[in-house]
Amino acid sequence: MEKRFNYEQLFAFTVTVLEAMGHSKADAKLGAEVLISADLRGVDSHGVARLRGYIRLWEAKRMNAKPQVRIEHETPSTATVDGDSGLGLVVAPKAMQIAIEKAKNVGTGWVAVNNSNHFGIAGYHAMMALEHDMIGIALTNATPTTAPTFSKQRMLGTNPIAVAVPTGSQPAFVADFSTTAAAVGKLEILQRKQKDAPIGWLQDKEGVPTHDAHGLKSGGSLLPLGSDREHSSHKGYCMGAVVDILTAVLSGANYGPWVPPFLAFMPMPQNPVGKGIGHFVGAMRIDAFRPAADFKLNMDKWIDAFRKAEPIDPKNKVLIPGDLERDFSQDRMKNGIPLLPAVVDDLQDIGKGFGISLI
Amino acid sequence: MEKRFNYEQLFAFTVTVLEAMGHSKADAKLGAEVLISADLRGVDSHGVARLRGYIRLWEAKRMNAKPQVRIEHETPSTATVDGDSGLGLVVAPKAMQIAIEKAKNVGTGWVAVNNSNHFGIAGYHAMMALEHDMIGIALTNATPTTAPTFSKQRMLGTNPIAVAVPTGSQPAFVADFSTTAAAVGKLEILQRKQKDAPIGWLQDKEGVPTHDAHGLKSGGSLLPLGSDREHSSHKGYCMGAVVDILTAVLSGANYGPWVPPFLAFMPMPQNPVGKGIGHFVGAMRIDAFRPAADFKLNMDKWIDAFRKAEPIDPKNKVLIPGDLERDFSQDRMKNGIPLLPAVVDDLQDIGKGFGISLI
Repeated sequence: MEKRFNYEQLFAFTVTVLEAMGHSKADAKLGAEVLISADLRGVDSHGVARLRGYIRLWEAKRMNAKPQVRIEHETPSTATVDGDSGLGLVVAPKAMQIAIEKAKNVGTGWVAVNNSNHFGIAGYHAMMALEHDMIGIALTNATPTTAPTFSKQRMLGTNPIAVAVPTGSQPAFVADFSTTAAAVGKLEILQRKQKDAPIGWLQDKEGVPTHDAHGLKSGGSLLPLGSDREHSSHKGYCMGAVVDILTAVLSGANYGPWVPPFLAFMPMPQNPVGKGIGHFVGAMRIDAFRPAADFKLNMDKWIDAFRKAEPIDPKNKVLIPGDLERDFSQDRMKNGIPLLPAVVDDLQDIGKGFGISLI
Repeated sequence: MEKRFNYEQLFAFTVTVLEAMGHSKADAKLGAEVLISADLRGVDSHGVARLRGYIRLWEAKRMNAKPQVRIEHETPSTATVDGDSGLGLVVAPKAMQIAIEKAKNVGTGWVAVNNSNHFGIAGYHAMMALEHDMIGIALTNATPTTAPTFSKQRMLGTNPIAVAVPTGSQPAFVADFSTTAAAVGKLEILQRKQKDAPIGWLQDKEGVPTHDAHGLKSGGSLLPLGSDREHSSHKGYCMGAVVDILTAVLSGANYGPWVPPFLAFMPMPQNPVGKGIGHFVGAMRIDAFRPAADFKLNMDKWIDAFRKAEPIDPKNKVLIPGDLERDFSQDRMKNGIPLLPAVVDDLQDIGKGFGISLI
């Protein structure tokens, strides 16, 4: 049913599409690399399947293909960046680069970004820090889909957190997770398989927990990590709120229910409170705290201890954050990236619009 | 059943006890203020009820009443601090003070602390940033109680995260939560009431979910926020892991299963991988990103919008992180801090040991 495409093929196609939209060669390459890193890492919901969504934002004039990413304000360890309505896929790595330069100078760098769009997978941006022996952090707010504890109103996005930590001989530790019980991509998988969602992922428009994997379409909302009050959904709500505040209240982007939706056909919120959506990225130089070699030795030891933690079922060993995504990446680099027929058709159709062939 | 004591009374008593242990007047006052801030904020498990635990650590020579808190390494935005085996209640505010000074100079300050002990409630330390118009962050690792997803072994503590955010006319936003489905204090409440815990808080020593609120005593473990794989306990595990890495692998403290237990009668882990337990605190100057007045105006708007989010049950409105604790604090400052008879007896007994009367 699925067909596999090799990385270079999807990369070249995406670069050509982004250039046809007006992006510079450099921005097109950067955006394509970030986008397809999601397909490689098994986060299919954030990869080429989403290219159409970005094009629709551009068609709706909500996305600028020639952004002048600009520092609005800075101190030695911080900056606020205006993404000029650019593709988040391009804006966020540029912000992360600024954070890395600041960390080189004063130990850490923290960049709040306003006026951006969806930035793909958070993990990509956090991982940029690794080659510099830095810990990388990337947060973003997103389309309101999630109700705070006790509410039935969509006030927050899935607001992911990514943290990448360098290691020695072990592969890097890369945590990349939404602050909801389930991310939208998980629902899409169930929708395609026509399966129910577990109770605890969604509630309907009255706030009643539901199995309906299509629940968002009928006015329902996602639940914060923790799922219900008894299991501490207020903690998931707290985390989503902190992400919203750092990415948007601190940067001057839109926050809470005012975040512009990713889907271009959805109405824009009235009376915006800021510019575009917001990101927050950070880099911390390991040797600003202790010698990098000591740290890496101890990270290897940390990982080794957790891998060996006694499993409940010997067939399911403890995973280290990043393990699954790395396995996907290795397989897909070698054997190609599987795309569903509907995604292939959509990419062909996109290609047709720009006079490019996918194959 | 419970008896109320006024703040000044408990403060004076705690100062005297800490001085009798050998603390300087200044450290005794600081430690008492941090400890009793937990009682004020309704986090009874981390307040004076825990004084006995600190004394036992001191008696076991695991806690130094005359610590020379020392910067081991620093850059303009970072420092690594050796807590000299001091009371975390005293070490952590000193580390936070360093973070605040660095933030004044270069926009943000981040301090990793090794060789410390339990630091009380995380929220106190994060809130120190508020009066400087800074966002405050405080993390700590803790006694291993929690199993990573798929494991039955205690590898992490409840590893809390606190984030305090300044506001304008609204009261401050203060999130302070453990990264487990339930903190130990919640279990203690159930134990006293002889009630069962909900499934999703604990598992027994074989990794089977259990209702037993005493489950930790029989080799069980706490579950990460999310409770089970289907409800994304791997995200709670990721958060707890990130806290462990920042507080201990980065600082040079013990991490994972090597964290020294708070209970002095429990055996110390063999072959320590660092010094004491670890904290990580940070301060970010708001005007390093945007003018503080603009930020506060928008934080007020954020809070107002979330307070007004449509409730499921009109009797349970959406709470802003910090609301409950502030209500407790106001009530207890006015009407006294309620202590259980067992806690009062224990404090009387502690007083007797040092020749001090509680009343």
